Order: sequence, then structure tokens, then C-alpha cells
Amino acid sequence: MATTKAPEHRFIDQMQPGEQLADQVFLVCKKDLRTTTNGGLYIHLVLGDRTGQLLGRIWNASQQQYEMIPDGGFLCVRGRTESYKGALQFIVDGLRAADKGTFDIGDYIPRTKHDIDKMWTEVLAILRTIKHPLLLALIKEFVKDEGIVEGFKRAPAAVTNHHAYVGGLLEHTLSVLTLATRVFGKNDDSDSHYPEVSRDLVLAGVFLHDIGKTAELTYDTNFTYTSAGQLVGHITQAAIWIDRKAADVADATGQPFPEDLQNVLTHIVLSHHGTYEFGSPRLPACLEAIAVHYLDNLDARLNMALSAIEDARNADSDWTEYARPLETKVFKKNVMGLPKK
Amino acid sequence: MATTKAPEHRFIDQMQPGEQLADQVFLVCKKDLRTTTNGGLYIHLVLGDRTGQLLGRIWNASQQQYEMIPDGGFLCVRGRTESYKGALQFIVDGLRAADKGTFDIGDYIPRTKHDIDKMWTEVLAILRTIKHPLLLALIKEFVKDEGIVEGFKRAPAAVTNHHAYVGGLLEHTLSVLTLATRVFGKNDDSDSHYPEVSRDLVLAGVFLHDIGKTAELTYDTNFTYTSAGQLVGHITQAAIWIDRKAADVADATGQPFPEDLQNVLTHIVLSHHGTYEFGSPRLPACLEAIAVHYLDNLDARLNMALSAIEDARNADSDWTEYARPLETKVFKKNVMGLPKK
Amino acid sequence: MATTKAPEHRFIDQMQPGEQLADQVFLVCKKDLRTTTNGGLYIHLVLGDRTGQLLGRIWNASQQQYEMIPDGGFLCVRGRTESYKGALQFIVDGLRAADKGTFDIGDYIPRTKHDIDKMWTEVLAILRTIKHPLLLALIKEFVKDEGIVEGFKRAPAAVTNHHAYVGGLLEHTLSVLTLATRVFGKNDDSDSHYPEVSRDLVLAGVFLHDIGKTAELTYDTNFTYTSAGQLVGHITQAAIWIDRKAADVADATGQPFPEDLQNVLTHIVLSHHGTYEFGSPRLPACLEAIAVHYLDNLDARLNMALSAIEDARNADSDWTEYARPLETKVFKKNVMGLPKK
Amino acid sequence: MATTKAPEHRFIDQMQPGEQLADQVFLVCKKDLRTTTNGGLYIHLVLGDRTGQLLGRIWNASQQQYEMIPDGGFLCVRGRTESYKGALQFIVDGLRAADKGTFDIGDYIPRTKHDIDKMWTEVLAILRTIKHPLLLALIKEFVKDEGIVEGFKRAPAAVTNHHAYVGGLLEHTLSVLTLATRVFGKNDDSDSHYPEVSRDLVLAGVFLHDIGKTAELTYDTNFTYTSAGQLVGHITQAAIWIDRKAADVADATGQPFPEDLQNVLTHIVLSHHGTYEFGSPRLPACLEAIAVHYLDNLDARLNMALSAIEDARNADSDWTEYARPLETKVFKKNVMGLPKK
Amino acid sequence: MATTKAPEHRFIDQMQPGEQLADQVFLVCKKDLRTTTNGGLYIHLVLGDRTGQLLGRIWNASQQQYEMIPDGGFLCVRGRTESYKGALQFIVDGLRAADKGTFDIGDYIPRTKHDIDKMWTEVLAILRTIKHPLLLALIKEFVKDEGIVEGFKRAPAAVTNHHAYVGGLLEHTLSVLTLATRVFGKNDDSDSHYPEVSRDLVLAGVFLHDIGKTAELTYDTNFTYTSAGQLVGHITQAAIWIDRKAADVADATGQPFPEDLQNVLTHIVLSHHGTYEFGSPRLPACLEAIAVHYLDNLDARLNMALSAIEDARNADSDWTEYARPLETKVFKKNVMGLPKK
Amino acid sequence: MATTKAPEHRFIDQMQPGEQLADQVFLVCKKDLRTTTNGGLYIHLVLGDRTGQLLGRIWNASQQQYEMIPDGGFLCVRGRTESYKGALQFIVDGLRAADKGTFDIGDYIPRTKHDIDKMWTEVLAILRTIKHPLLLALIKEFVKDEGIVEGFKRAPAAVTNHHAYVGGLLEHTLSVLTLATRVFGKNDDSDSHYPEVSRDLVLAGVFLHDIGKTAELTYDTNFTYTSAGQLVGHITQAAIWIDRKAADVADATGQPFPEDLQNVLTHIVLSHHGTYEFGSPRLPACLEAIAVHYLDNLDARLNMALSAIEDARNADSDWTEYARPLETKVFKKNVMGLPKK
Repeated sequence: MATTKAPEHRFIDQMQPGEQLADQVFLVCKKDLRTTTNGGLYIHLVLGDRTGQLLGRIWNASQQQYEMIPDGGFLCVRGRTESYKGALQFIVDGLRAADKGTFDIGDYIPRTKHDIDKMWTEVLAILRTIKHPLLLALIKEFVKDEGIVEGFKRAPAAVTNHHAYVGGLLEHTLSVLTLATRVFGKNDDSDSHYPEVSRDLVLAGVFLHDIGKTAELTYDTNFTYTSAGQLVGHITQAAIWIDRKAADVADATGQPFPEDLQNVLTHIVLSHHGTYEFGSPRLPACLEAIAVHYLDNLDARLNMALSAIEDARNADSDWTEYARPLETKVFKKNVMGLPKK
Repeated sequence: MATTKAPEHRFIDQMQPGEQLADQVFLVCKKDLRTTTNGGLYIHLVLGDRTGQLLGRIWNASQQQYEMIPDGGFLCVRGRTESYKGALQFIVDGLRAADKGTFDIGDYIPRTKHDIDKMWTEVLAILRTIKHPLLLALIKEFVKDEGIVEGFKRAPAAVTNHHAYVGGLLEHTLSVLTLATRVFGKNDDSDSHYPEVSRDLVLAGVFLHDIGKTAELTYDTNFTYTSAGQLVGHITQAAIWIDRKAADVADATGQPFPEDLQNVLTHIVLSHHGTYEFGSPRLPACLEAIAVHYLDNLDARLNMALSAIEDARNADSDWTEYARPLETKVFKKNVMGLPKK
Repeated sequence: MATTKAPEHRFIDQMQPGEQLADQVFLVCKKDLRTTTNGGLYIHLVLGDRTGQLLGRIWNASQQQYEMIPDGGFLCVRGRTESYKGALQFIVDGLRAADKGTFDIGDYIPRTKHDIDKMWTEVLAILRTIKHPLLLALIKEFVKDEGIVEGFKRAPAAVTNHHAYVGGLLEHTLSVLTLATRVFGKNDDSDSHYPEVSRDLVLAGVFLHDIGKTAELTYDTNFTYTSAGQLVGHITQAAIWIDRKAADVADATGQPFPEDLQNVLTHIVLSHHGTYEFGSPRLPACLEAIAVHYLDNLDARLNMALSAIEDARNADSDWTEYARPLETKVFKKNVMGLPKK
Repeated sequence: MATTKAPEHRFIDQMQPGEQLADQVFLVCKKDLRTTTNGGLYIHLVLGDRTGQLLGRIWNASQQQYEMIPDGGFLCVRGRTESYKGALQFIVDGLRAADKGTFDIGDYIPRTKHDIDKMWTEVLAILRTIKHPLLLALIKEFVKDEGIVEGFKRAPAAVTNHHAYVGGLLEHTLSVLTLATRVFGKNDDSDSHYPEVSRDLVLAGVFLHDIGKTAELTYDTNFTYTSAGQLVGHITQAAIWIDRKAADVADATGQPFPEDLQNVLTHIVLSHHGTYEFGSPRLPACLEAIAVHYLDNLDARLNMALSAIEDARNADSDWTEYARPLETKVFKKNVMGLPKK
Repeated sequence: MATTKAPEHRFIDQMQPGEQLADQVFLVCKKDLRTTTNGGLYIHLVLGDRTGQLLGRIWNASQQQYEMIPDGGFLCVRGRTESYKGALQFIVDGLRAADKGTFDIGDYIPRTKHDIDKMWTEVLAILRTIKHPLLLALIKEFVKDEGIVEGFKRAPAAVTNHHAYVGGLLEHTLSVLTLATRVFGKNDDSDSHYPEVSRDLVLAGVFLHDIGKTAELTYDTNFTYTSAGQLVGHITQAAIWIDRKAADVADATGQPFPEDLQNVLTHIVLSHHGTYEFGSPRLPACLEAIAVHYLDNLDARLNMALSAIEDARNADSDWTEYARPLETKVFKKNVMGLPKK
Repeated sequence: MATTKAPEHRFIDQMQPGEQLADQVFLVCKKDLRTTTNGGLYIHLVLGDRTGQLLGRIWNASQQQYEMIPDGGFLCVRGRTESYKGALQFIVDGLRAADKGTFDIGDYIPRTKHDIDKMWTEVLAILRTIKHPLLLALIKEFVKDEGIVEGFKRAPAAVTNHHAYVGGLLEHTLSVLTLATRVFGKNDDSDSHYPEVSRDLVLAGVFLHDIGKTAELTYDTNFTYTSAGQLVGHITQAAIWIDRKAADVADATGQPFPEDLQNVLTHIVLSHHGTYEFGSPRLPACLEAIAVHYLDNLDARLNMALSAIEDARNADSDWTEYARPLETKVFKKNVMGLPKK
């Protein structure tokens, strides 16, 4: 049988009760073989795509059916949606393995809405405006490191709090870099709002502040912490990488990398969470560390609130659900008649 | 005797040991008549100008001399500087009342380095870019209130932490307003970095966030809290004023001021300290409240660090003294070879 | 068909397994149409009255039945009770719309056990003993405000913590007012336990301390926060109302309301939660603010503990469930042989 | 030489600059022999009475003079007062030992303004209204313990925070007991504001809550912690004493003291500080523990504020100094025209 | 029918899906009679043994069957295991009462792996090395108290955190005592690592630090707090017992027990949690209190981590589940190639 | 004039009032030229040695004298001691430069009482018992690094809290290493108290836990933080060094250093402060991290308490001064009749 391209994916967050679906591929997040009260078997499934999760059920199931369902893999199904306890569930009437190539893996892992390569190009363009030659050389060592860059372009910015999607770290970093150029000068510091603050150090600090997340998180199938991430953490990881790259610059120039410069840059990364409670072993103690901490937070917090609003878009309430990192619900009513949101 | 203009004021932070000074006017911060160990009298003084304080002593003093020194007023003195316990002290050899008009009161109270009227004009220009008619009308009610505007142009932004000088509130507010236009658009939101955030609400919120400080602080002779400031606080004061001005707008338009709009604007002010511990009775719970909180903090914290650096400019150390609101010393070494600081 | 009065309501907290009920009206808190494992339909309900909630099920249901059940409205049912997972559930055998007038809405929302009008009369009697004419005039402005008084008589004192029922705010306020007269004098301060404390200010502060809750909470169908409540909060709301009423007094007398008096009264309200963590933007800083804070807490905490004991009355244990606001379980064993509890 | 009665003591808080004093007795808090800058000797003294401390100086002193001054004892002096650094100092012109009997020791240690025996009689009268025979028997064991009662009548309620004077513990305990009878009934619980709360347990708990302070503090010469106080603390001390007295009751009745009753009473004492941070190993978990905690705090906090106001009586400001236990200054302006304070 | 010995107990943590079991006895933790969707009855059970809990179901059940199942007692069942929602469930095909004597109660309550009497003998051997005669006498009073010793040999060290099994308190105490002899000397202090620290006081303090848990916890059927435990707590309980035993020593010797010694020993117990937040009313303030606090914590925390590792032994992950008292997951990968774990 | 060896140094903590001293060398911590009240000059000095500081005065001084006194250097003086404000002061009658070689620099900086080289030998002996070849190789890279070892042998363990003297880091590390061998086995883990814990990892972790302090602190003239110390901190510094040394091992073996092993070792160092508040970016999450944290604290806290006791040795009180890091005074009374302390 020819494996034909599956029809366009019907996303979970678009579904309504009462839909008939055919040839739809989902990620199998969980499967269970259960006994009904009159002794028959049924399979309980949790299906997923990048927009959410969906409960599925297969009545009158068999052990063979159960075994052919790939746990953590992709399944092609036919069936209909119902409302159950106020949420949708999907009653599966037919199923088969989902052949590779018949679906787009990008439909199943949440991912930035922006073009990753284009964003990376923009990041590079901003970094190129750094004037200090050794700082620029250090940044170039990172940009030349294919392993880091590969991760940097794919990693989420966090597991749950903000920019929690493939490309999120890049999107967040680009946003803060752009914000920094708005505040400290587009191409150089001639029109900086705070001329006493080193634009070069701020840009370098923003670029590196979360770069350790490429080692702290896994992001191929789902977003979790690596053992390295849990044992060492992205903040210390970045400090170690700066040390390695500074050694590389020293090798290239034949001069020791300036100790003060390395220390300040490391300090900006170490202190960017702002408080000990949030895992920073140092508090911001120079102008640039203060700047990076607040710009990073401004962007991350607005993204958290925007995500909360987006997730709650269709609800009647003027408020989102409780957003844990903000310690509050978010008021989402458009009191200004803004056209965009 | 004709009262001639005193010679240019010799500022306390410029003085060196061993200077001979004549016809110098100082603010008398404290005076004391004391007995020396061999039974004579001397007067212990604390003299001040806008750059700091100076210990003064008058040996072989008399009760009459003591009584003619105006406590909290201005005194014209002649004498010489010495080093005492690592700090300067001033040995007074002659003194007389300081005639009004012979000195510039601006030399004695710390004051913004910028032109107050020019800054106010810039604030008005930014506020005029608010598009929402009722919000603009509300802001105009504040701008029309001479008592508030008079205070707004003179008040410090805080007693000690940041912008603690005459005109500091205005300087800080203008800086955050300008910062807001860099982030959310110069004249309108067409080039905002965050188009989902209402530029109008951010600008109005920034303008009003600390306006209650005009009632919370006194700032004619020194900076302290008023009774109203201690009992009610600038945050609640601003909420009350917004209510009054909204009523004024309603009177003018014949329509009740939109409740949601007043609530959101009040919320931005109430929550701008960011945490309960810092006296905010609400946590930021809308996009604009988050934006105002972080922009305000970015500007205030950078100003704290810059002040710490400025106060410590001549010291040998690479670090300032401990800056309490930052919970750290500030590293002030110019590791980037910046020309400006 | 004549709508006859339904039989006396059988309250949920009185029900036992195995009861047959007919013509019983319940509030429909939630409804769900579900598929049974063999393909039939059933309806899952959550029914409520003022004493609690009850799970209901309708087997062999139809879509039409499902649609005629009013979500958030009242339903008249016939059926029987069962024990399910240690809790009751109700198997519905018949149902019809509940005609207005056939049931008492007061059976469905929890409500003070006391007579609301009688309590309000007592509050007024106590307030009339305030001697200071301007303070009394200010209080009268509140008493004349029908919107506020209407809310004051119906609002709960809190969403969950204490006095969480219709009339709870009034009951709590009356209790603290009475407590205050016990401590500071029944009719005047001639037999006050603390003559240095202004009885007038304490009484006014107690009356107003939670009055903002009338705007902070909704309490017609269930108890939740309004948008105004979440954005502004009852504490700031009361400060704004005091400002408005003081203006009304000033209009009436032709004299500005004394600023200090308004500030102190506002301070008592602002600080009555006692700590920043609990949302007070000021800490109690005058005798009367200290008095109101502790009397309010004494009454609220005892009510929390009493509610915990009441809710747990039939259980075997000597302890109630964990009472979150008290951070502990409550010991309810009668070790003293008290007859009342 | 006949020792005649010294003239009435001139209290330190009454002194003005420029007074001539003779035959005045002071407590010597500190003495120092120092060299003047031209080689002579002088003695630096800190003199005290129950109203405060005073700096003293003896010019042209000798070693013999220095040695005859009793450190921690009483000295009779002649001399004059001066203003020094805004505070008074006393220049001693003559001195001799203060003969016992020529001065009243009560002038030198701060002490309750009330009659100690009269207060104790009132405490006993209230305790006698306890109805529960075993609880009453337990209380009687404490009342019969002369060592405890002796301490109870003299101990301060705290080293610095509140009621920090001889008799302060008794004064505070009586005040809270009286407060408790106002709330829970004068002679029995027939007119209690909270009939569900055991009046007997509240009274017993109030009586015992701070009784361990008699062992925790010394209060003969000054107020400090004993070693037992620092190692064990008054809260655990009271728990141990309750255990001993319960054993005494059991001995007397031949019946074991009811375990639950001892546990609840102990719990009230253990939890009366209200939070772990303040040294309570338990949080209030029964009605009576809640009642004792809030009544105790109401009385202690009002006393702190009143002491702050009293200490600051003559100052110009409307505010007292910062009162550390209240975490604020206290507003002391009489906005109500109260005649008493 | 002869009741024969049941076959060896099949422990819950060993079971796999698809097992057939007969004549197996379990503790009945919960039972429920429920209606299936087609009107039949089934019984929902929670069965337990010392290794965990298991969901059970009896299809086509009757009311009689339901009633014969002993709630909180032991049931003998026949049936088969299934996988349900990723966990096992047990389908009961037959059941009867479990005759006493046919099963070992030790299989149903978690219990130390070590021999209780052997551990107790070791504890006694270590305590006998205490040299100070009065301290030794005090300890002997505890050892002679059969009620305490009985509890001490059976109590868990905590309800959930560490050593939460019968004999856990004894196991933990012995471990810390042994640790103490490693640090402070095996038989005396001649080879102590810290000769300034009293080995006697450390040993006595370790023995008594948690002894109050014998009164704080129940541990016959499950592990919960007693009323005494919740009202008074094990820390204060131990202080009271020390007071009683010191009185017993005094009776025996005819000399008052040295107050300082009792205070220091009591202090070690009171302060062993180390912070107020963890319920210690005192902070460690002598060398021995510091030593006991850290040795106790070292042992308890390692036990928590080891338990977390043991509970997670078969999982794929390198990390255990989140261990609440450690505020982290535990890394359990054997990076050193250790043979033992 | 021949510079002869100065007489034995008279240490500041041994001095009594009324001593005549000659040819005594002190460190000049501070110098000041001041005017006496009758116009003459005197010099105010702070002199120091390793046991403390002493106020000095030179009456009838000249500018020349003042200038010849080396600030921060060594001065040879003659004079006498006096009591001033309860503290000693030293009246200088003669002074001259202190010739190098005439005094022992070790008398002026506090220093461990133990032999540094002997302690280092003991450390090496313990480290040699590490069995894991790569871990041993990594440790050897540190031992081969002369810069680190030089610092390790001289650095204090902290600026003020504990082991604050030259050699303190080495002394503390050796003490914890020895402690670790007592707990985890003398030569190998065959007699470990916790066989599940890797003795090798604990030893390596203890050795490295504070090694970053060699870069964090300066300790030649006094103990302060370096810029690197304040910007980066000893914890991150150690993580960076481990990364470098692991790279060195990889270079030597031609194999990448095992990532897990490096991560776990780094984790032990990162988490050894135990909480975020104390600057650890990770919480202890493996057995060895828990062990290192508690052994480190046990040793450091006992040292703090012992130092407090030693500093307070001659006082009358049973208590030391308040020891800030312990948040308490320390009880130092010998209640056990111990001969040693």
C-alpha cells in the first residue's frame, strides 16, 4: 500500500466536540490497557501535538492492538471527538502506524513562530556591532562552536516559565539584544540612554546570559533538565565556557585574556537572576550586570504574561489562569481598545 | 558696611587639608557649646553645602558667639582646613551672619544637574503623544494642578536611595518616560518592541508611578517624610489623586470615567514596587504594570550604582562603599577603556 | 400544571446513603454528557446547596435531557443516594425545571445565621456613640451611601478564610465593633481599658477596615474577586472612599476636612493586615491602628477555628482537617466539659 | 558625722542645662580614668537613675578619687549641668560615698507606676473565678510557690520591648487578665463574647504565659537574661513548671492530672508567641491559644507604642523615635483632641 | 476447615502485571461499594503491606461481601494483577477472612531491617561509656523507664521524612551515637577529634534528642501524630522528661541535680533542629549543641537520600523522584563504579 | 648605630594598664595628625599585632614625626599603657623606624597555631588514599599547581567567620578531611559508617570545596576579598579550575575526562553551602554532597564557637559576646568539669 501524505494536521487546540477525523497523526504520550466493568478491554490513550494534549479511548480493544501502539511514537488514527468532564476526548475507531514522511514533526513539538535562521542572522548582526576587539574575539569563539550554536538555535528558554518552545532561547535572546540596542544605542553608544554603561558588555552579557541552557535542557522530544543541568546548572556552565573560550582567544593572540574583563563578563552571567533565591551565586554589582538583569526580566516576564493571555484566549473571563512564575492571574481585558492583541 | 557678593563658594567635596578660606557661607546643620578639658569653651559645628558635610570648631568661644549662630540657617566664616581622623575639619577664625543675597541657595541643597524647566517641557512633550482621549484628559488634570506640578518639579525621587536631590523625581520620571518611548515607540506604537503592550498606559503609568512622592516627602531644607507620607504613603496617595482627577474628567465630559481604565491605571501605580515586601499592595498583573515595574527599576538601580560610583570617584579602590539598596558594593573599574564615566 | 411549593429542602450535609428523594431542588454547579463504556450516554452533574456539593448521575440519558438542564441554574429532581468513594452520590431518576417561587434561594447560598437587619441596627447603634463630630459626619456619609450599605449587608468577609457567607462582613464587623466597646468602653471611654486610645477612631476604623470588600468581592451566585478587587483591592478602595466621603463632609460644612484626621483614619485601614506580606502597604503606626489590627485578627482567627470545628463536627478525630489560614489543624476535643460548643 | 536624708532626688529626665545640684545620689553605671591632652587626669562617668543616664566628668581628678567611686554602686555628688553634643553632661565638683538609707533605691531602677501588692490582689481575685476544679487547683499550686510569686511580683515583662520595669510582668499579666474578663465574661462566661471559648483556660493561660520570665530574667540591678533563660527560655520553663505543679495536684488528689488538660494548657503557653520565628515551638491550634496569643499581643504592642510616646513626650516632632519591635515610628499627634495622653 | 499457614507473602513492590495469586493476606486500607454504569455493584479496595499499596476491585459484588471485609483489618484473597493507568491493580476473584496466626504482622508495617534488641544492646553499650556520674545516673533513669524504652525500640524516627519505620528511632539514634563515638572517641575522649567538646554531653544529647517522639507518634497501625504530639511536641516533651528524671536522680542522691547540667542538656535537645523555622525554641549555643545538631542532620539527610534512592531503584532515570525534605531530586547514578549501593 | 634584635614582642592581648614598654615594634594600622584644644599637635595611632589592636597617642607631636611614621608599615616605639574608656591606650614617648630583621613578621598577622608544612603533608597523605584513578589524577593536577598550593597553604578559611588566620584554610581542610576518614574509613571504605557513600568523592570534595578561596581572598597584609572574589566568588572559581584540571587529565590520558564524574565533583563544590541564601547555586543532590556540606559545617561552626570562647576567655561572664555567624552568644561555662578548655 502506498503511503500517501496524510491530510493537513488538525490541531488539538482547534478541535470541537462532534468532529469526525481520519488519517490524523498524533504523538502517543501515554497508553494503558484497561478492563471495563463488564470484563471487556479498552485502551486509554493520551495523544499530543504541539498545541496540547487530548484524551483518547479505544473501546473493545485487544492486547495486540495495545502492543502495536508505539509509546512515545506516532500513531495514525480515525475517530470522533466528544465532550467529557468539560474537556474533549477522542474515541478511536481505527488506527495504524504512522509512516515517517507522511507527517511534519514540527507539528508535534511547540516551536517559535519565527524563522530560526533569520533570527540567528539578526543576532549575528547585532553582535558584530561590539567594538571591543577582545570581547568580540571571545564572542566569535562561541559563534564558531558548532555544538553550542546548534543548541542555541533549538533550545527553549525555559522548561515551563517563558519561551518554552523550540527556538525559544534564540527568540528571547534576540529580543533582549534588540531591546538593549534600543536602550544603549543601535549601532554604537553615540545615542545611548545611559552613556556610562558599556554597550559592548551589555550585548555580550545578554548573548551569553542563558547560553548554558543549551547544556542544561534537552529539547528533542520534550523539555527536561539534563543530569549536567541539574548537577551544575546553566549559570555555572556558562562561566566554565567563558573560561574555555577566553583560553582560546589567549591561544590565538598569544596574550593572556584580560582577567578583569573575563571576571566582569562572568559576573554578569552569574548575577543575571538577580537574587540568591533564584540561583544566582552573586548579586548584580556593576552597571552592566544591573542592565542585563532588568532587560532579561522585562522580556521574560512580558513573555510569561503574553503566553498566559494567549493560552486563555477563548475563555469568557477577563483574567487568565493563575500564572505561577508571576504569582498572580493576568488581567487580559482590552481596556484601551487596542486592535492587536 | 556694604554687603558685597561673597566669593565663589568653595564646595566641601573639593576641599583639601591646609586651605585658608574667607567669606565662605555654609548651612549650619548642628551647633554645640562645649567645655575644653582646661575649662575654656569651644563651639562644635557641623557645616553643610549640597556636596556634603564638614566638622567645624571654634576655639576660645563665648556664649554670645554661640547664640548668634543660626541653627539651620546660613553662616559666613573665615578659617582653615585640617585633617582629623582621616576626614577634614574646619577651624573657624572669624564668623558673621550671612546676608541674604550674598550667596546662592542652590549651592546648599543637592539638586539635579539638569535644567528643571527644560525637563518639564520634555515630559509634557512625551505625555502629549498619548492617543487615548480620556487617558490624555486624565493626565491633563494632573498637569493643570499647580500644587502637584510645583512639587513634581522640585521633589527628590527618594530620601536616600536614588535621585535624592531637588528635581530628582522629575529627572527620574523623564528618564523612564524616555526609556519607555525607546521601547514602546517614539511617537506612537508603530515601532514598538512589544506591540501587545499599550504604549499609552505605560506612559501614563510612568508619569504617575511616583507622583505621590510630592506629598510624601518634604524637600525645602532637607529630605524627610511628611506625616501624610508616613501614614498614607505615596502609592495610596497617587491612587486617591487618580480618583479625584477621574472625577474631574467625568465632570468635564458629563460621562463617568471608565471604571476599568481607572482600575488598570491605579493598579499600575499600586504594583510598581513589584513585591509586597517593598510596600506594593498588589503584584503586577497586567502587561503594562510589568513594563512600568521593570523600566522604573532599571532606571532607579542604575542611578543608585552611578551615584555610588560618583561618590567614590577619588578613592583608590576598584569598588565603591557598600550600597545598601543594591545589597552590594559596586565595581567601578573601567575594564573597557570607556572614555566617559 | 400547577407549580406547588416543593417539600422542605433536604440539605446535602444531612443526607445519608440510601435515601429516596422527590421534588428536591438543587443548584446545578456543573453538567457533563458522557459515554458509558458500552456506548450509552449518561449525564454527570455536580449539584449544590448552601451546605455543600453532591455528585449526581443520570444513566441512560439523552442529548435533550442534557440540554434542558440549566447550567448555573436550579433543577428539580427525583432519585436516590448512594455511597461512592466514601462520599455520597445521587442517582437521578427524574428531573424537571425548578419553577421560581417553589424554592427558597436562601437555601442555596451560605449565609449568616444571624438576622441581617438586626445586626445592621446594632452596628448603627454602636456607630452613633462616636463623639467626634467630623468623624461621625464622615461615618454618616458611608451610612447614607445606599450602594455601599447594600453591599455591606450582603458581602462575605472573605472568599474562603473566615465569615465566608452572605452577611459575613456585617457579622464580622459587628462582632469586632462589640469587642471594641468591651475593651474601649460601652457608650464612651469613661471605662476604657486603654484610656490613651481614641475609642472614636477605633470604632470608625473597625467599621471601615473591610468595607472595601463590598467592591472587591461578588457574592450573588458564588464568592469570587471582581476585576476591581483584583486590580485595586479592598484596602486601597476604602482609602479612596474615605477621600470621597471626606470631600462630601467638606462640602456640607464648608470647611476642609482635617487632613490629619483623614490620614490617621486612612492609615488604620491601610495597616490593618499588620504586615506587608499580607498586603498592607503600611505597618500599624498609631495606637488605634494597633488596636484595630489585633481585634480584627482575634475575631477572624477565632471564626476560622470555629468554622473548622463546625465543618468537622461529626468526625471521630480530636482534630479538624488542616486549616490553611491557621497553618495547623485545630484541636476540638472538649477537655473542659464545656456544654456549648 | 550624722548622715542626713539627702534632698529629693533630681531625676535625670527632668534636668536642664545650667542647673547647680548638691547632695544628689546616682547609680554609677561606668567609670574611667583618663588623661587630658596636657597630661592631667580626669574621670569620665556614666551616672544613672530610673529615668535615664547622664554623662559625668570630674576634671583635675586623682587616682584616689577614682578608686573610691563604687562601680555599680551609689555615689553622692555636687556639680552643674552643661549641654554637650546636644545632650546634657554633668560636671562634678565634689563627691562622697552615698550612705545607705539616705536615698530611695526605688529612684534608681525603673518600676511600675502601680502598687504591686494591689495588682497581685487583683490577679488573685480574677484567678479565683476559674470554675474548673483541677485547673483551679493547678493555678493554686503556682500561687502557693513563694519563689515563683516573689519573682512574678518583681520581674519585668521583657528586657527592652515592653513593660521593661520592676513589676512589669505583673502589670502586663493583670492587664491581659482584665482584658480577658472584658471579652470572655467578668465573673463567669454567661456574658462572654465568644461562648465557645473556655474562659477558664484563657485565664489560666494568660496567668502562665510569661511566668517563666521569673526564671529567664534577672531584675535586681539591671534587666538581663539568666543562663537558664538563654539555655532553656521562659516558654519551656513554664511547660516544665506546669508538669511539676500537675504532679503536685495529682499527689494531692490521688488521681493522675488529666493528660489532655495539661497538654492543652502547655500548648497555650508554648504557642503564645504565635510564630516559630518568635520562638514558639508550636502554632496556636485551639481556640484558647488563639485568644491568649492575640490578647497578649494587643496589650504588649499598645504598651510598646505608649512607652515610645512617653519617652518622646517633649520633642517637637509628631512622631516618636523608631520603635524597633513595632518596626516603625509611632505617630503621637493628638488628632482627636483627647485630653488624657 | 483447618486454617493452614498462608503461603509466603507476595510483597506489593515485587508484583508484576499478570500474576495469579492465591491465599494472600493484605491489610484493608479502604473499601467502597460502587455501582457500575450498567447498574451492577462492585467493590473498590485499597490493599496494603509494608512495601506499599495496591488498588483492588471485586466485580459483581454483593452488599454481604462488602460488609464482611474488615476495614483496617486483614483479608485473605485470590485473584490476578493487571496494569491500570501505569500502576498495578488487583482483580479479586475470591476472598475470606484472614485467620490470625496464618500471617506475619511484620509483613504489613514497615520496619527496620536490623535486629531491634541487638541495636538496643549496642545503644546501652555506648551509653555505658559516659563518665560523668550524674549524667550517667540521669540516662539510667531513662533506661529504667519501661514505657519509654518500649516506645524507643518501636517508634519510627519520623512520620515521613527519614527512618519512617518501626524501629527507625532506635536505628537512627544508634547510628548517630556510633557516629559520635567515631568523632569524639570510641571509649573515652582520649582520641577525640575535638577534645574541647564534652563527649559525655554529646552522647547524652544524641540519646535524648528525639526520645520525645515515643510520645509524639503512634506507630502500631500507621504512623501519625498523637494529640500530645501535636499540642506539645517531642522537643518540649523531652525537656519535661529530663526534668522528671533529674528529680528522680535528686531523690536517689539526696542532692539537687546540678541546675547548669540540666539546663545544658535540655538546651541540646531544644536546639537540635537548628533553626526556629524547624520548631526549635532555641538556637544551638554551646559546643555540644552544635555537634548534636550537625551529626543528627548528617545521619537523617543521608537516610532520606538513601531511602529516595532505594524507593527508585528500578527506574530508568539517573534521578529519584523529588524528595521534599531535601528540596531536590537525588542523583543516583553510580559514577564511581561502587559495587555496593 | 647597630640594629639589635628587638626584645621579645609584648602582645597586645597580654598588656595591662600601667606597663612601660621599650623597643616594641607594631604594625601601623592608621595614623592621624590632630590639633589639641589649646592649639598644639598630637598624633593619633592605631597599632596592631596578630592578637589585636591598640590605640596610641603621641602628645606634643610635630609634622615631621607624623610623616616618618609608615602607614601600613612597622614602627618601633617606647611608652606606657593606660586605661581609656575601659580599653587600653598606649602613650608613645619615643619612636623610630623598625629595621627589617629585628622583628618577626609572624607576630603581626594572625596565623594557625599548627605547622603549615606538617599539615600539608597530612593532607597529601589522606588524598593519596583516594582509589579512583581518574579522580586521583585530577587531584594531582591541583597538587602540582604551585600557585594554588602556595595559596592553599597560606589563605585563611574566611575573612571573619571561622579559621580567619594565615593557614586557616589548610587547617580547616585538614580537619574536615580527617573527620571524613573517621566517618568513611581511615584508609579505605572497608570500615565506613555509610558504605553507600563514595569515600573517594567525599575526600576529593572536601579537598576542593573551599580551594577557590585562594583566589577569593588576599591574605598578605590583611584579609579582604579580591575583585575576582567579589565578581566571581570561590565557588564558581573552583568549578572553573576543576574544568581546567579535568582538561589537563584528558590531555595526559588522551581520553575525555568522564563528564558525569566532573559534574558530580563540581556539584559537590557548588552545593556545599547548603542553601541558595548562602550563595550555593545548587542544593546538595547526591549522597556525597550532603556529606561534605554537613562535615564542613560541623567543623566550621565548632571553630566559630571555639574562637568566640577563646576570645572571651578572661571575662567573668559564662557567655561569650554575640557571635554573629552563630546568631547567638556561646555558653562557655565548664559544667562538666572538663580539664582542657
